[in-house]
Amino acid sequence: MEFNIIENGGVCTPLGFAAASCVADIKGKGKGNTDLAVLVSDAICQTAAVFTTNIVTAAPVQYDKALLAKGREFMGIVVNSGNANACTGKQGFIDCEAISAAVENELELPKGSILAASTGVIGNRLPADKIIAHIPALCEEIDDDGGSAFAKAIMTTDTVSKELALLVETDKGSFVIGGTCKGAGMMSPSMATMLAFVTTDADISADRLQKMLNVASEASFNSINVDGDMSTNDTLLAFANGMSDVAIDDSNSALFQEALNYLCKELALMIVRDAEGASKMVTIMVKGAKSDADAKLCAMKLSNSPLVKTMFAGSDPNWGRLMCTAGYSGAQFDPEKVSIWFNDLHYVKDSTLIDPALEDKAYAIMKEPEFTITLDLGAGDGVGTYYTCDLTKEYVAINADYRS
Amino acid sequence: MEFNIIENGGVCTPLGFAAASCVADIKGKGKGNTDLAVLVSDAICQTAAVFTTNIVTAAPVQYDKALLAKGREFMGIVVNSGNANACTGKQGFIDCEAISAAVENELELPKGSILAASTGVIGNRLPADKIIAHIPALCEEIDDDGGSAFAKAIMTTDTVSKELALLVETDKGSFVIGGTCKGAGMMSPSMATMLAFVTTDADISADRLQKMLNVASEASFNSINVDGDMSTNDTLLAFANGMSDVAIDDSNSALFQEALNYLCKELALMIVRDAEGASKMVTIMVKGAKSDADAKLCAMKLSNSPLVKTMFAGSDPNWGRLMCTAGYSGAQFDPEKVSIWFNDLHYVKDSTLIDPALEDKAYAIMKEPEFTITLDLGAGDGVGTYYTCDLTKEYVAINADYRS
Repeated sequence: MEFNIIENGGVCTPLGFAAASCVADIKGKGKGNTDLAVLVSDAICQTAAVFTTNIVTAAPVQYDKALLAKGREFMGIVVNSGNANACTGKQGFIDCEAISAAVENELELPKGSILAASTGVIGNRLPADKIIAHIPALCEEIDDDGGSAFAKAIMTTDTVSKELALLVETDKGSFVIGGTCKGAGMMSPSMATMLAFVTTDADISADRLQKMLNVASEASFNSINVDGDMSTNDTLLAFANGMSDVAIDDSNSALFQEALNYLCKELALMIVRDAEGASKMVTIMVKGAKSDADAKLCAMKLSNSPLVKTMFAGSDPNWGRLMCTAGYSGAQFDPEKVSIWFNDLHYVKDSTLIDPALEDKAYAIMKEPEFTITLDLGAGDGVGTYYTCDLTKEYVAINADYRS
Repeated sequence: MEFNIIENGGVCTPLGFAAASCVADIKGKGKGNTDLAVLVSDAICQTAAVFTTNIVTAAPVQYDKALLAKGREFMGIVVNSGNANACTGKQGFIDCEAISAAVENELELPKGSILAASTGVIGNRLPADKIIAHIPALCEEIDDDGGSAFAKAIMTTDTVSKELALLVETDKGSFVIGGTCKGAGMMSPSMATMLAFVTTDADISADRLQKMLNVASEASFNSINVDGDMSTNDTLLAFANGMSDVAIDDSNSALFQEALNYLCKELALMIVRDAEGASKMVTIMVKGAKSDADAKLCAMKLSNSPLVKTMFAGSDPNWGRLMCTAGYSGAQFDPEKVSIWFNDLHYVKDSTLIDPALEDKAYAIMKEPEFTITLDLGAGDGVGTYYTCDLTKEYVAINADYRS
């Protein structure tokens, strides 16, 4: 690796980025967590984005998409937690526009230069007036030490904030990529109530950044699964302000991609580790599939099965549930040719248990907070990986009681 | 309706069917529940079947399919609970054949006239010798009062046995349709660890019975969803022995279909009501879809979302989760045109909440043990219904601790 983790790094670690947060009491419960935040750059950013594929999209997703369709240069973003501003009709879009405009006015930025993101409960109007009233004081606080405050303010059911920054050394000098994300439930095959923001002081075109962000998100945020649900608000945004003066071109784009992949994957794994009610992070590798698509489909279905996920919770090497789920996944294979490993323990061969005496070893592996399950379908060279968690009673408690 | 429910009716209520059960200790834990049962007819039965679509199938499914490919006339079935005889390789098929043969020998029936079904843990060899040793005593007990004993012996995590019989009056006389089923978890779009057996003394051809069974299963066992998993063992079998001398032909087949639909739907709803850890049965109706297929897809995804199902558990009218799930279901619709009802309470119109004051009423409806949620997608005339349950902490406890 030609990059290194920067201690306590985050979205404000690259040159020229600053942030702030405040308590806007968006839920109206008088509670004290920060729930409104801004992130801004000193210089214009080339911007790339990946959004939810849900056809029901939140107002801020619609707002950002509309702006990104017109251009790729932005100055930053305003984010709230506690209310998703989804299923709020035309009013939701108007609220979104007004909040972004309030930030732009306060910071004397061009109209349409601040994007928006929201996360929280769907279906309630955003308290826009209350939010706008907080903008002047919030903008006063903007500071290049504000990355952690930003990361905390975007949390909902997350129990820890999620931040990372990498220092990347190149022949032309060094640049930094930073990131933060939130999300702990509703994770699914295609992201899900997940917000992720990447910043960099590298000098990169919006087109190049977009292509690399697509690649990085596929193997990270699009390969994690908490509960199979896909949100109306999923947003991954990357801002590049060029202030390191290190230009990314064909000579060093592979390195940028590698660092971006690493950053996105580590941020995504932080989400799985912090998944609602989860006690374990499980990597599901499928190999020997007819195609990579088949392998990914099978890994996704395994990562999504309540019976498989409760088996993780119970540390029970009940491999029949893996066979059964693979069998209905849609992947094509000979049901008599499957091998299964728990970490390096070869447990099943030709679809039968190798030795009942291995059960205690498999149980011990599954008691660990992180382990890998590998299925070889014996049908070809296709490979695919998903990252998931166990399904616990606490998940149900969190989601049954979320609003009330 | 030209049919009536027969009190305490089941698979032995039609003329000429008899059954018995015993404790074979198939799990080897020395526990006392009955776990082996036979059901036989005095006369040859025309037989129809629907099996799991999982490509990993249990040995008894493979065994029955092989026999049904050769002919449609059978005398009955031998069923065990406690072990699925799935992922047991060639030995599983051999065990299956030996157990059926033991019943055939004991009852002096033709070779290949007794079908087989199993339910329980996947991946362990069936204790065939132990089972075969119980067959003679079991066959001694066969009695036309044995329907309830049969229904109890096929249970796994079910908390109640599930039986129903209907008396159907026709111009030519009356006949009876009886049934039983088991299943409480792993229910899915296409059945799932579900065994269901239908008996009738109507005189009907195997072809006609098969067509009607396909129709009845689609709107019943294939329209329930407990956890989205699909088992290796799902089996629905219908036996018609003709002993009522009422022939089913074009003149009365609509009535037979109607009774069979009712029987299958009521049995399927018994499964949902008894779903693992569930406290509520919820009917999800989708209308106004572009097509019936779109409506069924949307209803299925709604019935399968952990966020929707935990919302049922919490009696929380968090309609945003319904919108969100409909949005990623794959059904095509205008996200601004959705209406939602809780029972008869119109709650959402044009994708926005009609009045926040309705929340208490919706909450009261969701506190009931059974209610209906209706979504109108505003995109056409397609309709589709699924029956599902809430996702509770008890579901997780049952499935995390099932084997250990």
